[in-house]
Amino acid sequence: MNRLYHVPLSPFCRKVRLVMAEKKIEVELIEERYWEEQPDFLRRNPAGKVPVLKINGLTLSESSAICEYLEETVPDPALMPRDPVTRAEVRRLVMWFDDKFHNEVTSKLLYERVNKKITGQGYPDSTNVKLGAKRIKFHIDYMGWLLDQRRWLAGDHLTLADFAAAAHFSSLDYIRDVDWNRNAQVKDWYAKIKSRPAFRSILADNVPGFPQPRQYSNLDF
Amino acid sequence: MNRLYHVPLSPFCRKVRLVMAEKKIEVELIEERYWEEQPDFLRRNPAGKVPVLKINGLTLSESSAICEYLEETVPDPALMPRDPVTRAEVRRLVMWFDDKFHNEVTSKLLYERVNKKITGQGYPDSTNVKLGAKRIKFHIDYMGWLLDQRRWLAGDHLTLADFAAAAHFSSLDYIRDVDWNRNAQVKDWYAKIKSRPAFRSILADNVPGFPQPRQYSNLDF
Repeated sequence: MNRLYHVPLSPFCRKVRLVMAEKKIEVELIEERYWEEQPDFLRRNPAGKVPVLKINGLTLSESSAICEYLEETVPDPALMPRDPVTRAEVRRLVMWFDDKFHNEVTSKLLYERVNKKITGQGYPDSTNVKLGAKRIKFHIDYMGWLLDQRRWLAGDHLTLADFAAAAHFSSLDYIRDVDWNRNAQVKDWYAKIKSRPAFRSILADNVPGFPQPRQYSNLDF
Repeated sequence: MNRLYHVPLSPFCRKVRLVMAEKKIEVELIEERYWEEQPDFLRRNPAGKVPVLKINGLTLSESSAICEYLEETVPDPALMPRDPVTRAEVRRLVMWFDDKFHNEVTSKLLYERVNKKITGQGYPDSTNVKLGAKRIKFHIDYMGWLLDQRRWLAGDHLTLADFAAAAHFSSLDYIRDVDWNRNAQVKDWYAKIKSRPAFRSILADNVPGFPQPRQYSNLDF
């Protein structure tokens, strides 16, 4: 059985979970307290980070390497386009969310509010929280601008880029940090991706100490 | 003519320069003061970061998306293996350097010593510099462990992973922050990659205010 070492609200783990569910690859989820740096876990990934995926006798880490591996070995349904130009656009957007959005928003909201508490690092830094709350607006506007011209973030088809973005937004939605009224197109995009069967496992998550808010799993939010 | 908007010591720009040179793709280099956030540049890349590559009528950003695009459109010489397992290992290591190494080492040494001065953000934070100087040892040891079992970082062949790592190390070597005596295998690896013709443009770099040290371009360092 495939095994994914993860934490429920990590957007990097969620991206892998979404891709596996979309491709109907079964996986057993194992919560990993990666911050405790247990030797067993560091052997699996010397970088000390989740997600780590055990699959086909391999131990894979780094979410983008895992997603590309899944795409290459289970090509159906395709989450990457065929032509190099659109592939570059998908990868640009995956990095946009996993690097820029992560630094400017996710780390400033989710990590301050949730990760610090779980890992015993104290209270949220309100300067960071304010910065994140301000910066997410720019990102929603940028997504709205993309979705003005495209059905999905990277073009006419659902790709890895949408799952990367949805992974971050779903984690932030769990702590009510997304203003869905800011942009109707972004809300429509999220409603569309949230209603996919691949999203079910993520909508069932419940994190001790952080009860799931009502709108989180509601498809009509 | 292809155009790369870059800054000379950015490891992300250097990775793209190395890959283009290895594949013998000609490119005109244009220095970009990205931190000034000029509207023209933000139109090219709303993320406001270098590298940005103009090629085949396209404007590409995010170094990993650019490198994969170059690999897909100019496959010879190959810098990615064919089988999905080794491809995942290459991508894991590219992320290792561009994410983990970058956060723990490059941002703490190069950004403190060079970027802060160039962008007018003041003096290096000595706590960060100390952290970076300590952390690079762990990374050199890890690379030594990999090179104990492999000719190149990801296996028997030179790949994107080697260029990603060499890009970071070459920038740190420019400010004399690499102790090449720590691990003989890592030194041999760097001597091997440094002597490739693809490295010439990088070894000719000269940054105003930071004169090139003597060992930097010496192939017998």
